[in-house]
Amino acid sequence: MPTICLVGTLDTKGREYAWLRDRLRDLGCEVVLVDAGVGRAQVDADVGNDRVARAAGAEVEALRAAGDRGAAVAAMGEGAAAVLAELHGAGRLDAVLAVGGSGGSSIAARAVRDLPIGLPKLIVSTMASGDVSPYVGAKDVTLMYSVVDIAGVNRLSRRILGNAAAAVAGMASVALPAGAEDRPLVAASMFGVTTPAVDAARERLEELGYEVLVFHATGSGGRALEGLAGSGLLSGVLDLTTTELADDLAGGVLSAGPERLTAAGAAGVPQVVAPGALDMVNFGPRDTVPERFEGRTFHVHNPAVTLMRTTAGEMGELGRRVAAKLRGATGPAALFVPRGGVSALDAPGAAFHDPKADEACFEALSDGLRGTAVEVEELDLHVNDPGFGRAMADRLHRMISSGGAK
Amino acid sequence: MPTICLVGTLDTKGREYAWLRDRLRDLGCEVVLVDAGVGRAQVDADVGNDRVARAAGAEVEALRAAGDRGAAVAAMGEGAAAVLAELHGAGRLDAVLAVGGSGGSSIAARAVRDLPIGLPKLIVSTMASGDVSPYVGAKDVTLMYSVVDIAGVNRLSRRILGNAAAAVAGMASVALPAGAEDRPLVAASMFGVTTPAVDAARERLEELGYEVLVFHATGSGGRALEGLAGSGLLSGVLDLTTTELADDLAGGVLSAGPERLTAAGAAGVPQVVAPGALDMVNFGPRDTVPERFEGRTFHVHNPAVTLMRTTAGEMGELGRRVAAKLRGATGPAALFVPRGGVSALDAPGAAFHDPKADEACFEALSDGLRGTAVEVEELDLHVNDPGFGRAMADRLHRMISSGGAK
Repeated sequence: MPTICLVGTLDTKGREYAWLRDRLRDLGCEVVLVDAGVGRAQVDADVGNDRVARAAGAEVEALRAAGDRGAAVAAMGEGAAAVLAELHGAGRLDAVLAVGGSGGSSIAARAVRDLPIGLPKLIVSTMASGDVSPYVGAKDVTLMYSVVDIAGVNRLSRRILGNAAAAVAGMASVALPAGAEDRPLVAASMFGVTTPAVDAARERLEELGYEVLVFHATGSGGRALEGLAGSGLLSGVLDLTTTELADDLAGGVLSAGPERLTAAGAAGVPQVVAPGALDMVNFGPRDTVPERFEGRTFHVHNPAVTLMRTTAGEMGELGRRVAAKLRGATGPAALFVPRGGVSALDAPGAAFHDPKADEACFEALSDGLRGTAVEVEELDLHVNDPGFGRAMADRLHRMISSGGAK
Repeated sequence: MPTICLVGTLDTKGREYAWLRDRLRDLGCEVVLVDAGVGRAQVDADVGNDRVARAAGAEVEALRAAGDRGAAVAAMGEGAAAVLAELHGAGRLDAVLAVGGSGGSSIAARAVRDLPIGLPKLIVSTMASGDVSPYVGAKDVTLMYSVVDIAGVNRLSRRILGNAAAAVAGMASVALPAGAEDRPLVAASMFGVTTPAVDAARERLEELGYEVLVFHATGSGGRALEGLAGSGLLSGVLDLTTTELADDLAGGVLSAGPERLTAAGAAGVPQVVAPGALDMVNFGPRDTVPERFEGRTFHVHNPAVTLMRTTAGEMGELGRRVAAKLRGATGPAALFVPRGGVSALDAPGAAFHDPKADEACFEALSDGLRGTAVEVEELDLHVNDPGFGRAMADRLHRMISSGGAK
């Protein structure tokens, strides 16, 4: 019997959750009802709001007394995430279902964010016909638009809620068909200026029997890669294009956040990494570049995209950051350094050619990884020389093979 | 055995759709595979792309030859909608499932848009972690984020697609629990400036045994009301606040489109209508009001909302439009005229008080409905006088009762 977790604000949506609970039981599911509201619940919860708040280091009475809705939503979302992680760890979580407006949707989105890809996550929301990126992020969250405010179970909401219950019951009850024929999966990070490198690596990996998922280093792409790296679905990561870290450092528009380049290491997934496109920070049209960067080196890629060359100081800091992240990896990791340049623009005669700045990065990488288990491979090649991507691919294959491919 | 319709571009996503078809059959569903691509299908369709294109008055070869992707997406979406309507009419449609990127999602969104609320509509999309309003609109569309491009069935996409298949199979297979205790539903349209009127009407309707769903006249609210009016779920519509038509006429920011105030009439649902808040057109902050309106009468509601008084000319045109829409209704309709003013701002001493402009509207309404089956009730009350909303509620109840409440 599958277990569905219902996460909601039982002070305002108690009746709807009670209906969903009964409906899911009728459909043959076990239900764990988690109260993420700070008011008095209209229905008995299996996990009370006091326990949810405490899982986030808060007290429900204090949250209620403070009267700060945003703070309450944040705390109860954190707490619900901790409760779900515990249920999942105990094998008591096959799907999550939530119903809410903006507050309830935010709580539910936070609650499911760290669950693995493939575990069904359905949110019925009044907010699901607009910008849902705050709720979905980089995870396989499913949003069902409620059309009207969910207020009571009536002729209309019964259809919406009934569909939602049937959908999660269906997803939780059905075993995934075996896919023995699947090839092992590798994720690779790419940018326009590193495309030849990733193409060469991908070609080699496919020869070796892998399936390669390519993520564009657009911020959301890097976040998706990170989310996937922690999902247990990847055999390895070919993180050739770590450029989003430059945007994170300098304030560009394509940052994937400071946690980029950490998920594979945390999950023990083999990774081969390069400082691809660390020579550039991304902005929009030229006139949107912040004034503080006047005097820097720019390249107008097209009317909508302006690139800024990273300085030697920034390159050194990026080298230190990449090294620190790799030192923290719990699985095998190797770093490949393309001494001939890190992007198509970082080549003799091209706009961002600056060997001194690159050297600051390479030195910091080498210094930061000396004496660690992370092997540093310095190649006298440009990143886009086919031999570079191929060498990274071969190394990743050796790592995966020696650890046993998934 | 439930029937699931798969709608997709089989020239680019044939393998994925073949997998979904087989999976749904394993789950006990009958499958109708509809090809909405313009290229050569990678898998045999049950409804070919030639038939889909022709349902939109196009030819698939011409669409392909033209090389205009936007035009092809639009035509195939229209055609797929016609195919789904036909299947639904024949009782051969219990749910719709689609998978795609931006093009495939657009086609699927158009295809499901006119299906009734409650019929499961699931789209697995690469676009489902951003602004999904173009795909969802005012319908109960469910979007599942694919995390990565759906390209082949691999270790990752198998989980996403497997969940999608299980979700639609679950929704299509489960009978909705009976809700004999449900009260009949009425939808009402409201704005801040007509809230007392709608409150009075709602109170009366609830006394009479109805459940009232209130839609805010924000454009999306009006669209949702229209979508619901065609769903077969409503016993009546109390369309007291038709203000979105003023935004549609004058170019305000809260238009619900030119089709506002037509769905109830088309579906034969009893409706009682008033020109509530037709005195105003909505804009954002004062400095965002287009220059062409300089010299008009404005009211700065708050820093984010600027209201513009409609002129006598506009009010006359609005009266003609409302009358024309009601003349086209296939079900019972009545129009209530609040001779004392149409909104809280349209009262003696208030910013938009302008009896002459109102009179232009009232005359056009009266002229346009003379000799028709639509009764016009002119009351010497302000719209927010409690008697006005109550009178509308009582009339709607009489209409519904004489036709037999749902």
